Amino acid sequence: MQIGMVGLGRMGANLARRLMRAGHSCVVHDADPVPGALLAGEGAIVAGTVEALCEALPAPRTVWIMLPAGAITEAMVERLAGLLSPGDTIIDGGNTFWKDDIRRAKALAARGLAYLDIGTSGGVWGLERGYCLMIGGEAETVGRLEPVFSALAPGRGAIPATRHREGRASTAEQGWLHCGPNGAGHYVKMIHNGIEYGMMQAFAEGFDILRNAGSARLPEDLRLDLDLADIAEVWRRGSVVTSWLLDLTAEALAEDGALEAYSGHVADSGEGRWTVEAAIEQATPAEVLTSALYTRFRSRQDHTFAEKVLSAMRKGFGGHQEPK
Amino acid sequence: MQIGMVGLGRMGANLARRLMRAGHSCVVHDADPVPGALLAGEGAIVAGTVEALCEALPAPRTVWIMLPAGAITEAMVERLAGLLSPGDTIIDGGNTFWKDDIRRAKALAARGLAYLDIGTSGGVWGLERGYCLMIGGEAETVGRLEPVFSALAPGRGAIPATRHREGRASTAEQGWLHCGPNGAGHYVKMIHNGIEYGMMQAFAEGFDILRNAGSARLPEDLRLDLDLADIAEVWRRGSVVTSWLLDLTAEALAEDGALEAYSGHVADSGEGRWTVEAAIEQATPAEVLTSALYTRFRSRQDHTFAEKVLSAMRKGFGGHQEPK
Amino acid sequence: MQIGMVGLGRMGANLARRLMRAGHSCVVHDADPVPGALLAGEGAIVAGTVEALCEALPAPRTVWIMLPAGAITEAMVERLAGLLSPGDTIIDGGNTFWKDDIRRAKALAARGLAYLDIGTSGGVWGLERGYCLMIGGEAETVGRLEPVFSALAPGRGAIPATRHREGRASTAEQGWLHCGPNGAGHYVKMIHNGIEYGMMQAFAEGFDILRNAGSARLPEDLRLDLDLADIAEVWRRGSVVTSWLLDLTAEALAEDGALEAYSGHVADSGEGRWTVEAAIEQATPAEVLTSALYTRFRSRQDHTFAEKVLSAMRKGFGGHQEPK
Amino acid sequence: MQIGMVGLGRMGANLARRLMRAGHSCVVHDADPVPGALLAGEGAIVAGTVEALCEALPAPRTVWIMLPAGAITEAMVERLAGLLSPGDTIIDGGNTFWKDDIRRAKALAARGLAYLDIGTSGGVWGLERGYCLMIGGEAETVGRLEPVFSALAPGRGAIPATRHREGRASTAEQGWLHCGPNGAGHYVKMIHNGIEYGMMQAFAEGFDILRNAGSARLPEDLRLDLDLADIAEVWRRGSVVTSWLLDLTAEALAEDGALEAYSGHVADSGEGRWTVEAAIEQATPAEVLTSALYTRFRSRQDHTFAEKVLSAMRKGFGGHQEPK
Repeated sequence: MQIGMVGLGRMGANLARRLMRAGHSCVVHDADPVPGALLAGEGAIVAGTVEALCEALPAPRTVWIMLPAGAITEAMVERLAGLLSPGDTIIDGGNTFWKDDIRRAKALAARGLAYLDIGTSGGVWGLERGYCLMIGGEAETVGRLEPVFSALAPGRGAIPATRHREGRASTAEQGWLHCGPNGAGHYVKMIHNGIEYGMMQAFAEGFDILRNAGSARLPEDLRLDLDLADIAEVWRRGSVVTSWLLDLTAEALAEDGALEAYSGHVADSGEGRWTVEAAIEQATPAEVLTSALYTRFRSRQDHTFAEKVLSAMRKGFGGHQEPK
Repeated sequence: MQIGMVGLGRMGANLARRLMRAGHSCVVHDADPVPGALLAGEGAIVAGTVEALCEALPAPRTVWIMLPAGAITEAMVERLAGLLSPGDTIIDGGNTFWKDDIRRAKALAARGLAYLDIGTSGGVWGLERGYCLMIGGEAETVGRLEPVFSALAPGRGAIPATRHREGRASTAEQGWLHCGPNGAGHYVKMIHNGIEYGMMQAFAEGFDILRNAGSARLPEDLRLDLDLADIAEVWRRGSVVTSWLLDLTAEALAEDGALEAYSGHVADSGEGRWTVEAAIEQATPAEVLTSALYTRFRSRQDHTFAEKVLSAMRKGFGGHQEPK
Repeated sequence: MQIGMVGLGRMGANLARRLMRAGHSCVVHDADPVPGALLAGEGAIVAGTVEALCEALPAPRTVWIMLPAGAITEAMVERLAGLLSPGDTIIDGGNTFWKDDIRRAKALAARGLAYLDIGTSGGVWGLERGYCLMIGGEAETVGRLEPVFSALAPGRGAIPATRHREGRASTAEQGWLHCGPNGAGHYVKMIHNGIEYGMMQAFAEGFDILRNAGSARLPEDLRLDLDLADIAEVWRRGSVVTSWLLDLTAEALAEDGALEAYSGHVADSGEGRWTVEAAIEQATPAEVLTSALYTRFRSRQDHTFAEKVLSAMRKGFGGHQEPK
Repeated sequence: MQIGMVGLGRMGANLARRLMRAGHSCVVHDADPVPGALLAGEGAIVAGTVEALCEALPAPRTVWIMLPAGAITEAMVERLAGLLSPGDTIIDGGNTFWKDDIRRAKALAARGLAYLDIGTSGGVWGLERGYCLMIGGEAETVGRLEPVFSALAPGRGAIPATRHREGRASTAEQGWLHCGPNGAGHYVKMIHNGIEYGMMQAFAEGFDILRNAGSARLPEDLRLDLDLADIAEVWRRGSVVTSWLLDLTAEALAEDGALEAYSGHVADSGEGRWTVEAAIEQATPAEVLTSALYTRFRSRQDHTFAEKVLSAMRKGFGGHQEPK
């Protein structure tokens, strides 16, 4: 098939690459000409403008937007809506807030345009491993684009089949899934990232305790000097915590057990926050997913004002003077 | 009555003062001669050594230890046990771990000595307001020392009576309580401090959000520039959060709404930690008390190793480079 | 002054009462005729319809809405906006979401109407103690209604002045405060309730641990059988946790130390949730306020699906069969 | 080699089986004769008593204890210590508290006995997949028993090598690791389980939110009816949360998406609790690992007393009557 790709950052460029490697053809565009030039060498048709990209695609056209979520993506959806024709499809493959998908899909449908929200997981590894795709939208549109999703997704690979799935007809085993109506794709991706935050924090705390097991503040006969890299490695085999995140941690610790290259300022993207909002709207307790988010908030501050309030109270009732 | 006071820090010296103001007499000792000299001017008999203090007291002797919890207090209990005689009483008024009280009381009883563990709340304000006393030990010993506790405690004061307490015979309204056998005094004080941590953190987070309501990172039409000192003050009247901790916060914020004098390194003493341990031994969930403790742990570090692990994983799967 | 009061539930009726006791006159309305009839006996003019209420008030009219937040209040604001004239004022004294206030105030201003959002704390005690009022809106409108706020607020009372407030000109000491532009009143009330949740949970966990200190599952020599009512009472005097919430807990425990009359299904209103949302929008960590909210969510379920997922995993890797 | 195995529950019996399949010989004992009889059919020598087991082994003897941690294991260590001779080795493969290992190892060393603490992960799958072994003790003893560990561990298998480990000489890639001196094995296993709890809770909360996305309490146009089994399956391919725990969840959800067979009463073993204690001893914040533990505590109660305290306060200040 022929796909338009708007936004050629790490993700967008590699999605186009993986599509082309599977025999699809791509018309690509980015405000920055450099990534397009690279892709041209791999077979892509580069469009200098969004208008040119739309013109270069045969009807019914499919344009995949892979831009930062928020105002930038929103503006691009608007712009494409003005350029495309009834029967065409806009895909938002970024990390858009799921309620925005529902709103957009309704507005685009009124103009005869189809819309898919696709949560795309895979990061820098997706080009080789394939991308896990969580898709929201009309079944008909999803069905029409099945070859695209098959090409991008990892496929069954060497991963063993799951018991009790015998007889289920689903593309989930291929690594892509039509999750439900619009919004469902990004909703599932949002929760995926929420879980990711929680799992990461679980490992982070665990390795923090392992490292501090040798702290000089502990009684000398209860100190343990542990090799974190070896521990991460041994857990990769036969333990309950085997996971891709552990593999990555093992690699980072093997490179430097003290992780001195890392600042510890930890960014968060919208999904972690929206996961908490979704939990609160449902009245679902989500202690771990929320704590994982707050830890990141805290990591980016020298001191919170909250901590100063605590110090002030302590001075107030106990005369305690906190060290600077 | 006549009381020996060992340890003349802020707490010990003021306990002695309050006792003397109520007509009791005190024999006092501290390794540092300065606080004793001050108390001598207020009527105390100063003993140069612990031995001298024990000799200066009439039988049955009562020695109140007001020293840092842990090894220092433990050593003093041991030392006094060697100097005192059957029928005498040792009081530990510090923040000792309650299981240590149970152990000690048993050992001292075998030598004919009585032991009381007394949680003492009141901080720098206790001299004037009185100390809230939570007492563990034998009823007989507690009964004998009732005049001491009455003198130290705040008494009924202007605080309205609690409904449904009509007909209860308890000293709780006086501000001191025989909580139960040895260990019970420090156990109740431990939980008191655990709750204190939780309440403090609730206020701290609330004021943090109020302060950040004007953050330049928020959309301009949704920013609120709030006067935290006035807000704390208005809550002191008729709101649900009226409390002494709020009074103290109002005072600190009135002095400086930005709390710039405070570092935000927040110490914790053993009680907060032991509260969590007690919760875990019982399988009682204690999310808030524990989070309040962890916040303090975090406040004393530039970055946790956990945060570096998060940064490392993020680089591993997404190529993300965290800012320094 | 003359005030219209719409909504005569516990809060609205008592606000009218307190106003009338202070010499103001009230025109009141409620869909249910019973509370109006009671207030008529205390001097209120009862209006059978909202229209009649508006007609009965002299210009410039002030109508205080005290209805459940959400659609009901929203509809009443709309309805009043159609009945009132430029120069009139609508007050929303309920627990409205602060962003709704900003939106509404803008729309009403375009029609020449003033709008105040007032967070009102005081509960069933406000009639006697006075209501703590947190007000958002134009300074001019707030100034004009100063006699109303003075009448409703607790005033200075017996509460000691806060150090460092000398020379500050503020009504905060009276128990009412103009917090800022529209939205600020409900924002401050929202955070008040968020803190309230956190403080409540701190006490709740503390008393839970105290109660379980006597659990038969603990080793016999480490069990403590504690009198929770007496402990709450003793803390009311001289301790760091003295607070109105402690007073209320002491009363409830004095009535029944096992609290058997209470189900433990704990409701939450919007403010606790919006507090977390505000924290997340700002990237302010708010562990304790959030945990307090989640505890309430959990309290209203027999079992979460999350717990079943845990059971299922445990069976999967360990063959563990959880008890029913 | 020849190994004695005491305790033939699921773990102990399968350890013996895996050893025998690798050509080692086992002398086995259990208070219950049934599992021994089964193992006899697979080549094990069954000892009717612990004494017989010790006699049947050639010097230097190695006895692996695989019993419930706590008093039962402690008693068996004591008993074996009385039966074994200098140069013999006791292995505790259960989930013992690491400080007990340090104490025991010291006492046993004084009697000439070697002691290893081995954290053993693998559950019901270990027989086929191999056991991940985390070992604490003297290097010499560990070295002598290397054939045993190689037989039990999973080996390299198909798991890709970790980058940056080139040139490291470690058995970690084989799935077993000498972590450090006594205590280190169980310490590392303890943290493994702590992380496991956190990861499990992250998945549990995520799937809880996914399930509640279709809740009838949400606005109709924002409800999503999601197929949890398919979502778990799609995440197994190319997503960031791929892990063994996800595999198990996918299987359970494929069997029944509502998990109706599971009660949601979630047990916890000591490691989760000790992980929190270790964190607190070090002053390491561990929000997620602790929340995961508390969730389990809460899952086993109908209502906490804490919740009743909240209900009581709410009635006190607001007259709220919670539903039963």
